[in-house]
Amino acid sequence: MAAEQDPEGRAAARPLLTDLYQATMALGYWRAGRAQEAAEFELFFRRCPFGGAFALAAGLRDCVRFLRAFRLRDADVQFLASVLPPDTEPAFFEHLRALDCSGVTVPLLQVSGPLLVVQLLETPLLCLVSYASLIATNAARLRLIAGPEKRLLEMGLRRAQGPDGGLTASTYSYLGGFDGSSNVLAGQLRGVPVAGTLAHSFVTSFSGAEVPPDPMLAPAAGQGPRVDLAACVEVWLERVCAHLGLGAQEPHPGERAAFVAYALAFPRAFQGLLDTYSVRRSGLPNFLAVALALEELGYQAVGVRLDSGDLLQQAQEVRGVFRRAAAQFQVPWLASVPIAVSNNIDEEELARLAQKGSEVDLIGIGTSVVTCPRQPSLGCVYKLVAVGGQPRMKLTEDPEKQTLPGSKAAFRLLGADGSLLLDVLQLAEEPPPQAGQELRLWPRGARESCTVRPAHVEPLLRLWVQQGQLCEPLPSLAESRAFAQLSLSRLSPAHRRLEQPEQYQVALSEKLQALVNRLRALGPQ
Amino acid sequence: MAAEQDPEGRAAARPLLTDLYQATMALGYWRAGRAQEAAEFELFFRRCPFGGAFALAAGLRDCVRFLRAFRLRDADVQFLASVLPPDTEPAFFEHLRALDCSGVTVPLLQVSGPLLVVQLLETPLLCLVSYASLIATNAARLRLIAGPEKRLLEMGLRRAQGPDGGLTASTYSYLGGFDGSSNVLAGQLRGVPVAGTLAHSFVTSFSGAEVPPDPMLAPAAGQGPRVDLAACVEVWLERVCAHLGLGAQEPHPGERAAFVAYALAFPRAFQGLLDTYSVRRSGLPNFLAVALALEELGYQAVGVRLDSGDLLQQAQEVRGVFRRAAAQFQVPWLASVPIAVSNNIDEEELARLAQKGSEVDLIGIGTSVVTCPRQPSLGCVYKLVAVGGQPRMKLTEDPEKQTLPGSKAAFRLLGADGSLLLDVLQLAEEPPPQAGQELRLWPRGARESCTVRPAHVEPLLRLWVQQGQLCEPLPSLAESRAFAQLSLSRLSPAHRRLEQPEQYQVALSEKLQALVNRLRALGPQ
Repeated sequence: MAAEQDPEGRAAARPLLTDLYQATMALGYWRAGRAQEAAEFELFFRRCPFGGAFALAAGLRDCVRFLRAFRLRDADVQFLASVLPPDTEPAFFEHLRALDCSGVTVPLLQVSGPLLVVQLLETPLLCLVSYASLIATNAARLRLIAGPEKRLLEMGLRRAQGPDGGLTASTYSYLGGFDGSSNVLAGQLRGVPVAGTLAHSFVTSFSGAEVPPDPMLAPAAGQGPRVDLAACVEVWLERVCAHLGLGAQEPHPGERAAFVAYALAFPRAFQGLLDTYSVRRSGLPNFLAVALALEELGYQAVGVRLDSGDLLQQAQEVRGVFRRAAAQFQVPWLASVPIAVSNNIDEEELARLAQKGSEVDLIGIGTSVVTCPRQPSLGCVYKLVAVGGQPRMKLTEDPEKQTLPGSKAAFRLLGADGSLLLDVLQLAEEPPPQAGQELRLWPRGARESCTVRPAHVEPLLRLWVQQGQLCEPLPSLAESRAFAQLSLSRLSPAHRRLEQPEQYQVALSEKLQALVNRLRALGPQ
Repeated sequence: MAAEQDPEGRAAARPLLTDLYQATMALGYWRAGRAQEAAEFELFFRRCPFGGAFALAAGLRDCVRFLRAFRLRDADVQFLASVLPPDTEPAFFEHLRALDCSGVTVPLLQVSGPLLVVQLLETPLLCLVSYASLIATNAARLRLIAGPEKRLLEMGLRRAQGPDGGLTASTYSYLGGFDGSSNVLAGQLRGVPVAGTLAHSFVTSFSGAEVPPDPMLAPAAGQGPRVDLAACVEVWLERVCAHLGLGAQEPHPGERAAFVAYALAFPRAFQGLLDTYSVRRSGLPNFLAVALALEELGYQAVGVRLDSGDLLQQAQEVRGVFRRAAAQFQVPWLASVPIAVSNNIDEEELARLAQKGSEVDLIGIGTSVVTCPRQPSLGCVYKLVAVGGQPRMKLTEDPEKQTLPGSKAAFRLLGADGSLLLDVLQLAEEPPPQAGQELRLWPRGARESCTVRPAHVEPLLRLWVQQGQLCEPLPSLAESRAFAQLSLSRLSPAHRRLEQPEQYQVALSEKLQALVNRLRALGPQ
């Protein structure tokens, strides 16, 4: 938690990170004498992303942090004054200067408080929740495809939308089920486990002609004389090449020098990147020579990585070589050195790499987790549902864009076996559904009502912020990650499957449906 | 420029915004005694995005800012110590603490300096250049589709990858050819022109029962008595409805109250959002009533916005209504009130909205400019090309992933009419191509060489940073924007067209091609 207090970790979510129309509307509300009127907005999306039937909602911590720090500084107010009409009253800017979110209450995704300020919150809250939820959901899909055993590493920082996009991606792909990230800042600021070894540039930077300042390495146990690792590797190279049927001149000396340098820096965590020159004729024999030289000193290599070509086929071949070398040189652990792969892995390739019998252990994914190419945006919206205690509804001619009016509560109904039946939206003033009691409901999109008798009822909304104060401690990132995995495990397979899933049902209470019907009838008049 | 010095505007590009393997490699180089060895990297992409034949390179300012501020703080070094082996020498961390980029030289996309530090720069530079260039190119495509006349407004903040992704998107879509953004922070920190009016929530927040604290408005000229705008609007509503053949009860009173409130706040910049209830039966008559009441006081409405349904068809209908109302009420400016549209506009829809005869004036684009759905990442790479004065080449078995070795210069060759012939990559030590002299070149991907006699030669690389100092002032964002448009205008139509363009040719000098051939032959051995 200490790391999260790093002030720069609060990134760029500031009151002016907003669309200008929020500021022009603020002036409109203020001149209309309505700035302080009680209002309620809901943040939601209309369709689950990627053609699936579930989504993980994420971003709460960033939202809460933003709300609690919400304050327009003098420079912010001055900038707004420069883009609003020159005759805007100074009193309006005084009002902005005094704004904070102490009047704002946030159960997850419902925001209520003074009209002017809850309107101003629209864009930054959408910005904080929408991508976080999208990438958490994307990561969850990739985890479902990979299965629970494969290790998944997010390494998309360089493919993200700038620095903070990368930080968001690393944080929320971990929440969605990845095991860690390459992004050091995500480790420092958010506590995401970080991992990484070496790039091709490290390998190509060595020609083999370099003289290490100190090629001597002490045994792992700390006892015994130091050994010249580079010389020892050359001895092992002969044996490995003979075993593999290669000439000892074939493996690239620069690659080997790079491996030796890396092994000297990380004797307890030696890994090889095999594909800079040729996996079979260079990367693999060089790796084995270094790994076996380290083994003599009591160190175990911890992995190899493949970054081009047919990853699955190469992994199977590499595993075969490891098994045979383990037998040949009587080094059992060599048979199970973890194999990592990377290189533009998408959902289809991931499914292939995760198939039964695959020898791949760790999968690094960049572009396709970070950019969510199947659907690069979630389409969250933030809609006014009540103002001055009266329900509000957007009644556009496009039925997709109509909203559900009124201040609401939400519940999840479960069967006797703990299976999820459906979620219910109802007016906040209605009593909650009772376990064991029959309810009449209107499923969204259906023309007729239905009845349900839930065995269990769970409230879905939690009050997080009231009068500027946190109501309960926020979960840690690791707790949120565990909660997300638990929630996914409770979904039925029909809802959880990634292609053509059964849609999860959301239903309205009779009172909420009646309110919708009444406002629709009043309609555009 | 003052705004750009805002310290928080420097966003989240910090030395630890990097992949962990950069730090592990740093330790590897350091232990191998190679930290200070001279090295050169190149940042490039292999294929132009979106199937096009051009790309705008963007992000230089962010890179330079990052390089000049590059310093590991104590907390950063401590965090690295926590993820590197516990036996790492304190002297390594002292080396990190003392690092800066004063030994680093940056002609655009070439980075040379001490091996350890230029390696560390890989991920943040990729992160800063890749998305900036992608979205600038995407924006340039959208500008080419829209043509020079339509105004394009970026409004995708809520669809971006978190706060800083939004800031990056707004900045570089402006560079690529948009006219402005809804993102206030981009205006404050980067000087992007900002625009915005009102959302549906503003409209739905009014029921019509509200009593404005002061409905009186003074005439635009400042002379004459104040008038009750709300009352005046009701009078005009009768006339407008009669003209349109609507009952005066049809237009929604809440929408009208919202428009009046907005007009009282922005009498000189009144705009209407027409589609909250029904464009034809509510939004349009309400807008006309308010616009005509304002006209009586000498104010001109500045626009309307449509945000759902068939945008082109509605724009044509709205324009027709405006023209007839302009004639009927003898208010000529009403005929040409700008019509703005928004709602998930992609390249295809934009082409439709920009077609000849379209009455649309301003187009707001969010998701499809910010997320670049046709290709959500550019795939930039950063590769070692020389170390210790020796060329380096990655010789993987995947020919796509091979790199071009050696420290290079780049030139653009032009014909006598100023048309672009091709770009040449050559070794830095070669003399530059001379205008009027024949050159033998090897076009990339071709099996044979060709000769070219350029009429003009332009160097493509510029030296921006040397010994930690800027070599010349960076262009402003507006200057970069103008330069981008000029560069695009110099491309031939065959290269500029968006679908199946002719590929722009890049060729190697004979010496560079010979070096490639030599290193390839040495190859994996």
